[in-house]
Amino acid sequence: MAAAPVWSVDPRTGKQREQVAVEATPQEVDQAVHAAQAARPALADRTVRAAFLRSAAELLAASEEHLVEAADAETALGPVRLTGELARTCYQLRAFADIVDEGAFLDVVIDHPDATATPPVPDLRRYKIPLGVVAVYAASNFPFAFSVPGGDTASALAAGCPVVVKAHPDHPATSELVAATIRRAAARHGIPEGVLGLVHGFEAGLELVRHPLVAAAGFTGSVRGGRALFDAAAARPVPIPFHGELGSLNPVVITEAAAAERADTIGTGLAGSMTLGVGQFCVKPGLVFAPRGEAGDALVKTLTAAVSDTEAGVLLDHRMRDNFVAGVTARAELPEVEAPVTPGAGGDHTVAPGFLTVPAARLAEDGPHDLLLEECFGPVTVVARYGSADEVTAVLSRLPGNLSATLQLSEGEAAGEGRGAELLAELTPLAGRVLVNGWPTGVAVAPAQHHGGPYPATTSTSTSVGGTAIERWLRPVAYQTTPEALLPPELRDGNPLGLPRRYNGRLEH
Amino acid sequence: MAAAPVWSVDPRTGKQREQVAVEATPQEVDQAVHAAQAARPALADRTVRAAFLRSAAELLAASEEHLVEAADAETALGPVRLTGELARTCYQLRAFADIVDEGAFLDVVIDHPDATATPPVPDLRRYKIPLGVVAVYAASNFPFAFSVPGGDTASALAAGCPVVVKAHPDHPATSELVAATIRRAAARHGIPEGVLGLVHGFEAGLELVRHPLVAAAGFTGSVRGGRALFDAAAARPVPIPFHGELGSLNPVVITEAAAAERADTIGTGLAGSMTLGVGQFCVKPGLVFAPRGEAGDALVKTLTAAVSDTEAGVLLDHRMRDNFVAGVTARAELPEVEAPVTPGAGGDHTVAPGFLTVPAARLAEDGPHDLLLEECFGPVTVVARYGSADEVTAVLSRLPGNLSATLQLSEGEAAGEGRGAELLAELTPLAGRVLVNGWPTGVAVAPAQHHGGPYPATTSTSTSVGGTAIERWLRPVAYQTTPEALLPPELRDGNPLGLPRRYNGRLEH
Repeated sequence: MAAAPVWSVDPRTGKQREQVAVEATPQEVDQAVHAAQAARPALADRTVRAAFLRSAAELLAASEEHLVEAADAETALGPVRLTGELARTCYQLRAFADIVDEGAFLDVVIDHPDATATPPVPDLRRYKIPLGVVAVYAASNFPFAFSVPGGDTASALAAGCPVVVKAHPDHPATSELVAATIRRAAARHGIPEGVLGLVHGFEAGLELVRHPLVAAAGFTGSVRGGRALFDAAAARPVPIPFHGELGSLNPVVITEAAAAERADTIGTGLAGSMTLGVGQFCVKPGLVFAPRGEAGDALVKTLTAAVSDTEAGVLLDHRMRDNFVAGVTARAELPEVEAPVTPGAGGDHTVAPGFLTVPAARLAEDGPHDLLLEECFGPVTVVARYGSADEVTAVLSRLPGNLSATLQLSEGEAAGEGRGAELLAELTPLAGRVLVNGWPTGVAVAPAQHHGGPYPATTSTSTSVGGTAIERWLRPVAYQTTPEALLPPELRDGNPLGLPRRYNGRLEH
Repeated sequence: MAAAPVWSVDPRTGKQREQVAVEATPQEVDQAVHAAQAARPALADRTVRAAFLRSAAELLAASEEHLVEAADAETALGPVRLTGELARTCYQLRAFADIVDEGAFLDVVIDHPDATATPPVPDLRRYKIPLGVVAVYAASNFPFAFSVPGGDTASALAAGCPVVVKAHPDHPATSELVAATIRRAAARHGIPEGVLGLVHGFEAGLELVRHPLVAAAGFTGSVRGGRALFDAAAARPVPIPFHGELGSLNPVVITEAAAAERADTIGTGLAGSMTLGVGQFCVKPGLVFAPRGEAGDALVKTLTAAVSDTEAGVLLDHRMRDNFVAGVTARAELPEVEAPVTPGAGGDHTVAPGFLTVPAARLAEDGPHDLLLEECFGPVTVVARYGSADEVTAVLSRLPGNLSATLQLSEGEAAGEGRGAELLAELTPLAGRVLVNGWPTGVAVAPAQHHGGPYPATTSTSTSVGGTAIERWLRPVAYQTTPEALLPPELRDGNPLGLPRRYNGRLEH
């Protein structure tokens, strides 16, 4: 059987641009994993890892024009967005280089013997070591930042783990280009190119998560695809951690007082957030609680105007476009659902943004309106009009887990008056990131970031963005009564590497 | 159908002592989980949690005589061991109270806005919150320390998570007594008794891990039982973290030089470690590499004498005794396996310790000898006699994951001569704790402890002993642009609670 071709497709026309590769056979997946495994010793030195990450950032930035052009041709995300995304990606690689240098992620803990403990404590020294080869499943909607050179890859390499990426079919040419760039960076530091493997094809992705030498996986994508891989990871003879970001509704609650205070600002901000990047963000606000009555009406009016003014856009591929059109149509047909701006097919290859409204009470109980509580990828949101706080609570209690949850409060509520604190406490169990008077799109790369949340937002309690993303690819090991001469330098009393650590119970840095 | 009775059984006679309870129905499991869920707010205050843990330790210690008597009657572990185990349990509860007070486990990270970042960073503040109700599956072999009041429970309560324990059938009476004691401690602090639920029965255990309100699980036990529960946790509509400690062979490598230097000490130490507690420790050394030739012969001779001198003992239950007898018989019948001291049935209710020897080369390839690479619970170990370092390497490369791996080195090797460092590097991938010139039995409660390891040692990368065990029951949440007035005190700039934290990138404490 001939290997299936992998085509780069132009979403603006639906036409095949070029054949980039062929889908990987099981033998090729096995080769990629073995090559990655063989690259582990080359990543053992933290200094080398940090330099490699910085070189990767440098070479990616140097190829900006070429990479952005390639990515735009097969994603239609546009050069402005893609230039920004590549800059973010390089920033992220450098941020992880800094994290590698600092070494706090090693979580060094040293306990000298303590005969007074029950039972007595021997000399114990713990730090974290890399798990092994990491499989990364690239996202459709970020050809750089959540793909071959993205946060999963950067954090895994930072942890000392070689990576095999399963490319997303929406940008295979970009994936190949970027992988080659990272391999050039690796070569600079004497790291074999196997440190970053790249495979194409659905079946190859399944082979990959089942490979005995794959020690962990990171994934960004749909609930359906992510759950299938999660299940495969859990069903292995030796199960492995599967850190998947699968889907999120990202609820927004707008209080009556907030709407009364700044209906226009909120309406405009919401329109911008839900249509940003043609609604193709995992943190797109997909369900918005707006009060019934005058203030809410004003907000909906502004939203109507702003969304009407937003141009139709091209989604990442035509399957997504079909799903979007079918999804919004099915939602709009539900009883009591209205469409102040009808989302759906735009031109032959575009989709028009829009939004739906529904009485919040319709979402409070099992029924056909449950469809509105499922993520619909693309430029659409659902505005649930509520008459009381209880109605909001009733719907919130039915929501699955989310990456983000947002509160729009009045100035007084933000200062502590009224139900602000109560609402914050109500939203916290729902999400991994809670915002006040902001919009969830735009996920900063920062130590305090948490891009994750209760299932299905993520399949684990970890984050895929921000400094702590590195924790996913490590495991602790403790050395007991191990002589100084044999201890890794990270665990020696004299702290020759100057690492932050917990030393005899006390934090030191 | 009448509810199945739960009996306390005397393992010294095999006779039923008393009916303790009945197996929990699905409705009773549901009630216990709901009661635990309702206790969450009472655990929200860290000061209250710490005081509760200390009260639990105090009341358990005050009931020492009664509890040890009860536990001995149904486990036959003996008053000396059980008194020590209870002291360890109380120490552990107090250690977690200290951890709660310190607050480092909250992992507070605060980032002020940074317009120079790519993309710009808004105000972001992250800490960790309790996951929710935790299911704990008690171990057979530690009626206190890995059971109702054990490390899983202590760390979950410390994290702010109420617990429902599935009692182990080997000590139901002790479980009830201890649970009542902890509930008395809870009452002291106004915490509802539902904070610690207790259910009996295999089916109840399955119901528990599938309950929608159970947010995570901890388990200590067999590979078979643990894997079944792990699979159930992964197959839920909303999968949950399952931290299971399932099984471990705990390899020991004795170098030629070490054997030449102190064959007697090592032989005696090994005999003590493998027969301690009638071999019923998860870190019992189950596979020992000893050199062929004179030094190794001397070591085996000492081991033979020491094990011969060790009295027969009572295992925790008669099913275990049957499994032990069948297990050692099957192993002893393998070609080229010898039994310098034959393990097996002792008296009617006891088992006699023993050990087997085999040429290491027999373990280097697939075949019937693979049985020797499976844990056999009870007082037996397998001594693999090797002729070369390559033989050891070949067998080590075939081992599943372990809780511990031990090196016995000569004085020179411990000081850095010869292959000491190389061997340490070879053992590190195999285990969560690596020891030099010690024995793995005796797992200290300390910040640097790691009691976990590659599967099947544990089903996750976490530990069930030591301070970091608390990490299992938390998830991060980040607050973005949230006004000071609404922020939890843990995340305020002024640090009113004096918590260690990462503040604008810098570690502070």
